[in-house]
Amino acid sequence: MSSSASQKNATLTFQNVYIESTGTFVGPIEKEGPLGDYFENYSDDLYYGEKTFEKAEREMSKIAIDSCLQKVNRTYDDLDLVVAGDLLNQLTASNFVAKDLNTPFIGVYGACSTACLSMLNAATYVEHTSFKRVLAYTSSHNATAERQYRYPLEYGIQKKDMTTYTATGCGSILLSNQVSNVRIAHATIGKVIDLNQKDANDMGRAMVPCAYDTLHQHLNDLQRTVNDYDLIVTGDLSTYGKEILKELFKADGINLDNYDDCGCMLFDIANQEVFQGGSGCACSALVSYGYLYPLLQQKKLHRVLILATGALLSPTSTQQKESIPCISHAISMEVV
Amino acid sequence: MSSSASQKNATLTFQNVYIESTGTFVGPIEKEGPLGDYFENYSDDLYYGEKTFEKAEREMSKIAIDSCLQKVNRTYDDLDLVVAGDLLNQLTASNFVAKDLNTPFIGVYGACSTACLSMLNAATYVEHTSFKRVLAYTSSHNATAERQYRYPLEYGIQKKDMTTYTATGCGSILLSNQVSNVRIAHATIGKVIDLNQKDANDMGRAMVPCAYDTLHQHLNDLQRTVNDYDLIVTGDLSTYGKEILKELFKADGINLDNYDDCGCMLFDIANQEVFQGGSGCACSALVSYGYLYPLLQQKKLHRVLILATGALLSPTSTQQKESIPCISHAISMEVV
Repeated sequence: MSSSASQKNATLTFQNVYIESTGTFVGPIEKEGPLGDYFENYSDDLYYGEKTFEKAEREMSKIAIDSCLQKVNRTYDDLDLVVAGDLLNQLTASNFVAKDLNTPFIGVYGACSTACLSMLNAATYVEHTSFKRVLAYTSSHNATAERQYRYPLEYGIQKKDMTTYTATGCGSILLSNQVSNVRIAHATIGKVIDLNQKDANDMGRAMVPCAYDTLHQHLNDLQRTVNDYDLIVTGDLSTYGKEILKELFKADGINLDNYDDCGCMLFDIANQEVFQGGSGCACSALVSYGYLYPLLQQKKLHRVLILATGALLSPTSTQQKESIPCISHAISMEVV
Repeated sequence: MSSSASQKNATLTFQNVYIESTGTFVGPIEKEGPLGDYFENYSDDLYYGEKTFEKAEREMSKIAIDSCLQKVNRTYDDLDLVVAGDLLNQLTASNFVAKDLNTPFIGVYGACSTACLSMLNAATYVEHTSFKRVLAYTSSHNATAERQYRYPLEYGIQKKDMTTYTATGCGSILLSNQVSNVRIAHATIGKVIDLNQKDANDMGRAMVPCAYDTLHQHLNDLQRTVNDYDLIVTGDLSTYGKEILKELFKADGINLDNYDDCGCMLFDIANQEVFQGGSGCACSALVSYGYLYPLLQQKKLHRVLILATGALLSPTSTQQKESIPCISHAISMEVV
């Protein structure tokens, strides 16, 4: 597989976009995972006291947002713009939360790449427009996603081995032009890539080509190498996809030693029932905002590249025997 | 109803964003409508030679895009960025088309407000970033939308009187920093507004408050009056919603004489079976790109405000007895 990175530039550089705060909320299995201590809000079950899983997902988002704002003594009134998206049809998880925010709102959809997609849009507005304090959030919920994309959890259907587990939770990030110790330095906007993979139970491997393309594109655009980063993470390629990405880069003469996958970091794959790792919009958002951002603040990491990955299929496209288009957007977080 | 426009600015001003070209494709009933002659591509049926309605929607989009580019001798290689969205779950109409474009891609979702949402994002990138030629497109298809949101057409279910008819087609617009005779001058980003309306068969009236809010917001932000526009159009408020919006403004002491609704313009409501008018992402896109843009080019209109409106419900949220959050984004097209 040769680099398919086109000659077009796909990378934005930001001079004045800083992370002001982040907030997270996770479900029970994410809290029990290896990064559990990094998430400040959690629920012991998937209902979180609500009558429906959908309402639970919204409440989780509200708390992640409020938590993000309260840390820096901000309120909804301080927000100039909100950018958000999620996995649910018609972005209802995000839209129903946004109605309380009383702020201009942009809905984005990139499946599990939505964390980086919402961040890169938020960063563009902070850098260039009068919207100087912009909130981005994204959520997923295992039970709402399973019901929508596959089967309701209550069916107890046996899952395929190659599948991943949709993470439950919400990650929220507040960007502004006010100098802090971590900034959003670059964003690479991904292309929709489809290599005709059709197994909806193996989205991890289906998403490898888009992560491969965006990482090459990012490095080419900035004339950087993988060694310019302390850590590179993909969104949710699964244990298998992660190894394939490493092999592809190895074939290009590049060792991805400083690389991991958010879905493999969020869970203890050997001991938690998550099949080949975590996925869902919340997966890379939680790992990035809850775990990597504090490490950057503490200067334990200095430059991190997040390649959130999304499989742009729908149940209808799967039933119609269509392939799985995928996309990966990248964000570089750097210590100031 | 007093103006709920917040004190926050929600309006972007562009100095260097021009319309380079537009392209349209419509279905049979749109072609037969009063604006039919303005649409350069059409199909005599909803299948357009494809096996599924979903594939037909994609083919329609491809032709609208190619038509837009061919008019100005552009190819996919000339595109720096693409912004698109549609009504189908997981934006599959847009995403499956994007895989052929080999260009950085941003997916947005604002239900039927997506025409303005994609345009305002495209304009922001043209104005401020190195992405100087940006394509936006949006589509809807009566049969794919009915199947997804309500019942498959094949059921022949009786529709409620207050409903609107989802337009079939795609509108595509190419924005760049290259001077032309029509520019995108301003965009107002809407807030998610929910006044607890719950009738999913009456989305026209549900969307009135968001159109009302965004229009007031736009005028306040720019210190303009409705008389600064030759024409103001909303997306798809239905015959009823259109009259309510006029009444609300009348109560504020403002006569909306220079106002119409894209859904009421696209069809001959008295003689076509479209209930209370057109709707769908394509509705405001087709009227704006196919009909209003040429009138601006010919200087028959000089300044037009397009308020695309979106009902952010999902079948799941309706089944769960939730209300209908709505949003309206505005774009001002002006003769140079």
